[in-house]
Amino acid sequence: MATRAIANWVISLREEDVPEGVWRAAHLSLYNYLGCAIAGSNHPAVRKAYDALKPLFGKNTSTIFGWREAGPDVATGLVADAQHAALLNGIASHVHDYDDTHLDTIIHPTGPVASALLAYVQHLSQGSGTAVSGKQLLLALIAGIEVECKLGLSVWPKHYDIGWHITSTVGSVGAAVAVSKLASLVSARQDDVDKMVQAIGIAATQVTGLREMFGSDTKSFHVGRAAQNGLLAALLAQKGFTSSEQGLEAMRGWSNIVCETGSFKLKTYVDELGQAGKWEVEKNAFKPFPCGIVKHPAIDAAIRLHKEITDKAGDDGLLAALKKLSFMTIVHPLVLELTGKREPKDGLQAKFSIFHGVAVGLLFGKAGPAEYADEVVTREDVIAVRSLVNAMARPDLKADEAYLHALEPDNPPVDGKPPYTVHVEHAIGSVTLPMTEDQLVDKFVDQVTTRFGDAQPARALSDTCLKLQQDADVAKTLQNL
Amino acid sequence: MATRAIANWVISLREEDVPEGVWRAAHLSLYNYLGCAIAGSNHPAVRKAYDALKPLFGKNTSTIFGWREAGPDVATGLVADAQHAALLNGIASHVHDYDDTHLDTIIHPTGPVASALLAYVQHLSQGSGTAVSGKQLLLALIAGIEVECKLGLSVWPKHYDIGWHITSTVGSVGAAVAVSKLASLVSARQDDVDKMVQAIGIAATQVTGLREMFGSDTKSFHVGRAAQNGLLAALLAQKGFTSSEQGLEAMRGWSNIVCETGSFKLKTYVDELGQAGKWEVEKNAFKPFPCGIVKHPAIDAAIRLHKEITDKAGDDGLLAALKKLSFMTIVHPLVLELTGKREPKDGLQAKFSIFHGVAVGLLFGKAGPAEYADEVVTREDVIAVRSLVNAMARPDLKADEAYLHALEPDNPPVDGKPPYTVHVEHAIGSVTLPMTEDQLVDKFVDQVTTRFGDAQPARALSDTCLKLQQDADVAKTLQNL
Repeated sequence: MATRAIANWVISLREEDVPEGVWRAAHLSLYNYLGCAIAGSNHPAVRKAYDALKPLFGKNTSTIFGWREAGPDVATGLVADAQHAALLNGIASHVHDYDDTHLDTIIHPTGPVASALLAYVQHLSQGSGTAVSGKQLLLALIAGIEVECKLGLSVWPKHYDIGWHITSTVGSVGAAVAVSKLASLVSARQDDVDKMVQAIGIAATQVTGLREMFGSDTKSFHVGRAAQNGLLAALLAQKGFTSSEQGLEAMRGWSNIVCETGSFKLKTYVDELGQAGKWEVEKNAFKPFPCGIVKHPAIDAAIRLHKEITDKAGDDGLLAALKKLSFMTIVHPLVLELTGKREPKDGLQAKFSIFHGVAVGLLFGKAGPAEYADEVVTREDVIAVRSLVNAMARPDLKADEAYLHALEPDNPPVDGKPPYTVHVEHAIGSVTLPMTEDQLVDKFVDQVTTRFGDAQPARALSDTCLKLQQDADVAKTLQNL
Repeated sequence: MATRAIANWVISLREEDVPEGVWRAAHLSLYNYLGCAIAGSNHPAVRKAYDALKPLFGKNTSTIFGWREAGPDVATGLVADAQHAALLNGIASHVHDYDDTHLDTIIHPTGPVASALLAYVQHLSQGSGTAVSGKQLLLALIAGIEVECKLGLSVWPKHYDIGWHITSTVGSVGAAVAVSKLASLVSARQDDVDKMVQAIGIAATQVTGLREMFGSDTKSFHVGRAAQNGLLAALLAQKGFTSSEQGLEAMRGWSNIVCETGSFKLKTYVDELGQAGKWEVEKNAFKPFPCGIVKHPAIDAAIRLHKEITDKAGDDGLLAALKKLSFMTIVHPLVLELTGKREPKDGLQAKFSIFHGVAVGLLFGKAGPAEYADEVVTREDVIAVRSLVNAMARPDLKADEAYLHALEPDNPPVDGKPPYTVHVEHAIGSVTLPMTEDQLVDKFVDQVTTRFGDAQPARALSDTCLKLQQDADVAKTLQNL
């Protein structure tokens, strides 16, 4: 019985069961999440959702991260009820496509789980004065992410191929598990396992996220909605609301409905929970570029080529040199399926354009949040270079591998060899070549600086987030983010 | 382009386009909905959800129907924000399985649409003083129900067979359409069609409802959550939140993901919208018994047999007479698939037990809300009679048809004919034999009386609801329900 097995594992998980590397991975995941949520918090998608839903907000118990400096009504740092904070922080954390990626499933695991959990921690603090420590928070986060990713693995790749946005479909369950675990940590009732079984069912029945929505505001909405679904499920179950004993594994349960009978391996992955070397949060990767991870190898290649051409032509001669060339990137087939947008109209669409990623890499030598701003996407020189970029898929390439060739159309190579060739075997941010903690701090500060136009609050916020795991009462600290 | 075609039809729909019979059917649907919502409002599922979510409630703009008389904090009649009112009223309207049924799809159409719409009407009234007339309300309700049912027809039966609770999966879209239509009626902007296209996409991506949850609190949660999903979608779209131009029909849109490519007929049914004789709300049926409509024919048969046996044995001899018999009901195969629960433990489970339905019909000659109370389900005599009921499926029977045979095990019939046989060709409440308006009023008063233990408020509430369609400002009236 997979649902009950999950609930049993989560409730019995103690701090001493968690290896050091798992704590560290969870800490970095939360840190990276907070940087993304703060940096994304002034995105129009967040603002539109705020404007639409403000009239429905309940008691202000929770923080919309990043609004302390520049948002409305932030005297206390508490600007929304827990459910609306979960939604808005979830949207913000994903809106730049700069969040973490569990590479085996391309789930962005922290967004749905942390958005629910942090809003709930503040809700508890404001409601009953319950203090939650950084360690308790991380333990609940770990439980949620492990379940979320094991569930994702069990239906991967069929579930995603069908067209479900796996981040949010499994994220609802991860969020429900994490909130239920935290509730159990601070109250220690006898019926926690039973309540978690029901919470998983209530979360599972809210299947949110069609891949059709990619490239629109609704993609990041999925992450926020998954957080809300999970939080709602946990709160209902705590009051005895019933769902199913076998929400995940029943004949008409989640797995059979959203995957395909025979195409999932629920038991296999549930059995792995907590096994040595099988912690999924340790396989979580952080993105150096704010876009789908599948196009990172090609961007990495473009940045290397930028250096090579700039070295020859100089900064001033770069654009002219690029315009004389024609570019061909060769990538894993999923790249073109997911990011094949030829002529993106704005920053959101550009995230789904391998052509844009390569173009800004070639032109600017970087592909950070600034290179995905709407006004950059429509710049004349960017459009010019983008039109020179071609792409083709080769199934034998690995997901973190890419080639980039540059040819001179007027001057075909005599020996058949293009004048420039870059081969990226493992893109930065992959499991083989992870971002270092220093690089993660740079990323945090860089994107939060873009948000506020000033590095000073960015550095202060980074320091605060790095220390969160040692807090005795995290709710207070969250109020200042 | 089905999504845009739907949006175009809905926005262009005017009062004068709607035939008289459609107005009447919508009026009765709303009336029946309100009776069910009021009667269900003290069910434990509603109370648990209220207790769990009260701390998150926003400004009290909307009513939880049925709480004016007996709920908490009802000085003004406004006890929840629009989103939480939509959830709780949605749960209440469906929790007794006594709501309406669109027989061609077994969708319960009014619950998701009206729960969102009525909460929104009150929200508008409280927020901006906007008055909505009974006629405007009904027009928006009709638009929502028509789209909801056409969408349901387009994926029926495959979608339901897969395991989706069709009421809520299409209900989200119906609710989004209805709220968007009402917003358009009171504001008349230029971009209404575009906004409705986006709203449909946001609603469609929130696919809520696994049939696995039947028999638990989460079944009726689906109806409330669908209302919330749709209301949320409409509110976000009004502020420019984007989703997809082809949310329903795209290669990875709703239909392909939740049905099966080749198994749905979206264009066929969208083209029917508004065609003479093709209005779905006119095919909406009302239940004489508070349980899944599929078991109604067998209950109808049991009630007839109750009369026959009582006539012979007298009221006092009934139980003894029943205990000497063994019962076999023969039904459409879907009945056993959906309501095959042999030993229900409470009222909610009993709704999914053909055995319980037949037993109370035989024992009490009725099968109303009182016969599904928890304490009746566990009564000794009910258990005794229930254990004597058997059921078998015959695929050639129609959905509204059933046989009930009674045999004397100790005394097998010499001629092979059982001593009692009832054949119900069309159950009451079917399209062929609909409940009359008087019967609907009796049903309203009966169930609301059970709610309050007093017929006086029930009659007054019934009169108010019957007049709702003539109101110039329905929000004020809703406040008194």
